[in-house]
Amino acid sequence: MAEPSIDGKLAEEFAVPSHVEEVKESMTEFAQYHTSEGRRVVVITSGGTKVPLESRTVRFLDNFSSGRRGASSAEYFIEAGYAVIFLHRHRSLYPYTRMFSTINMLDALQLKSEQGEVVVDQEVLPNITKVLKRYQEVKEHRLLLPIEFSALAEYLHLLKAAAQALSTIGSKAMFYLAAAVSDFYIPASEMPEHKIQSSNGPLQLSLNMVPKILSPLVKDWAPQAFVTSFKLETDASILLDKAKKALDTYRHQAVVANVLDSRRGYVVVVTRDTQVELLLTDEDVKKDIEIEEMIVSNLTSAHCRFIDQNKV
Amino acid sequence: MAEPSIDGKLAEEFAVPSHVEEVKESMTEFAQYHTSEGRRVVVITSGGTKVPLESRTVRFLDNFSSGRRGASSAEYFIEAGYAVIFLHRHRSLYPYTRMFSTINMLDALQLKSEQGEVVVDQEVLPNITKVLKRYQEVKEHRLLLPIEFSALAEYLHLLKAAAQALSTIGSKAMFYLAAAVSDFYIPASEMPEHKIQSSNGPLQLSLNMVPKILSPLVKDWAPQAFVTSFKLETDASILLDKAKKALDTYRHQAVVANVLDSRRGYVVVVTRDTQVELLLTDEDVKKDIEIEEMIVSNLTSAHCRFIDQNKV
Repeated sequence: MAEPSIDGKLAEEFAVPSHVEEVKESMTEFAQYHTSEGRRVVVITSGGTKVPLESRTVRFLDNFSSGRRGASSAEYFIEAGYAVIFLHRHRSLYPYTRMFSTINMLDALQLKSEQGEVVVDQEVLPNITKVLKRYQEVKEHRLLLPIEFSALAEYLHLLKAAAQALSTIGSKAMFYLAAAVSDFYIPASEMPEHKIQSSNGPLQLSLNMVPKILSPLVKDWAPQAFVTSFKLETDASILLDKAKKALDTYRHQAVVANVLDSRRGYVVVVTRDTQVELLLTDEDVKKDIEIEEMIVSNLTSAHCRFIDQNKV
Repeated sequence: MAEPSIDGKLAEEFAVPSHVEEVKESMTEFAQYHTSEGRRVVVITSGGTKVPLESRTVRFLDNFSSGRRGASSAEYFIEAGYAVIFLHRHRSLYPYTRMFSTINMLDALQLKSEQGEVVVDQEVLPNITKVLKRYQEVKEHRLLLPIEFSALAEYLHLLKAAAQALSTIGSKAMFYLAAAVSDFYIPASEMPEHKIQSSNGPLQLSLNMVPKILSPLVKDWAPQAFVTSFKLETDASILLDKAKKALDTYRHQAVVANVLDSRRGYVVVVTRDTQVELLLTDEDVKKDIEIEEMIVSNLTSAHCRFIDQNKV
């Protein structure tokens, strides 16, 4: 008997967002425009996915992720000449604004009552001019296409749409799958409609496995693209084995392996033949260097070689 | 045999945040300063609570809540002459900044290269002057004390600390418990240390009931305060019964009852003797009136009567 197809499961068990075709079109247009301008295109996924426990959802499962890695990586990909499709969790951290909160920003505003102007106090936000300039250039050149998701179902369908949209640009596409995607979910058919009542006593939950989307992404939807997945563990001793096993199973190009506690200062980029440790030194930290700059530099080089090899 | 005390359970099963004594002191000082200035003090809880599934947490349960109701209510309580302790989920919506995202704000900034100034374009943010003025006055008069939580354990201990801090001001204290608090949790002793492995197959979770904190809050920690709880259901048919039952059980002063789908336009404020429906009309919506203005107006009047009655 044939393995049940993930495509079929996606359509059956995960509600298709109503705007998916519209988003796919805008992604296709974005990818074609930028490749015609000589740029490569990366799809960055970022933030956690929400898994509802009720169909009128009050409660949900989530994955720890502020979206910091995805947001900062987006900036470094743009610096490296890429155009970025930023598929991110609603309200997760965002490129360029990631260092500010709305409260920081309101705290930095001053009323100039004579002119009726509202001005930023640059002692409170010392980087604002530099960040704002870069943000405005990126907007002007349309280098960043933001797409939002909240629920797991939205994430899965939008990622599939992105893969199909980018299949038109072949090896010039990269996938940088930094989102923290749930491994478990409750199928719609097994979900209660209404809020689970606490008066019914302790709660037993039974969760199914989320289909491994990496498999059809690599095999069917975007077979020519350069695909990087992320592996986050809390237990360092199983990390590298799991990273290598993922590469064997899905046959994609790279895994960025990291441990929860040290993820901002140390990662290993694992490919089929190599294993490169990236480490922020104390001196790097003092100079405000971020590990995402190193990760992106490593992967953009690998992507370059990948494109060359696939030309032959 | 005596019922196990909630205090004991709190200490045993929910890790005490290291800064709780410091926070309690600042809340006590805040409450005493403002009552000496003739103000009443409200503790607003806002946003959802995180319930970890692993002790090195990658996954967690959460409750749907943007924090909108708590954040807007804080503004109306301040307009009504209250000082506000805003006990809110990290990164949930915040008073005064709640209508802006960081992207809105960056989009509204303009570089004036001649003077090197960064100025807000007030066509993009038409309310900014008014909001900023009010925000600065509130800061100047120290009318808002923000306290953050993420995990359920932090919420429980910080709320207890708030209740104890406000017990010194008797009936002048109000609790406005708008946070969406989890009813279920996994005790530390039953939690795996490391990230749950998806390779182990489908996930069975068994969750305990969270102790009903409203009970010791009303009976022991702040017995003289005016306490308002919130009841959110998806099923309108059980809502009022549940609200009345809560009042009977906990003997507090008011329940704000609301249904998920209509919560921004319709609530019922239930007390032991009354049941007041608050409804936003289409005309109200056009005038940018918010339902929280009505809720706060109803409750501040009730609080006023409550203080008078307790003087006798």
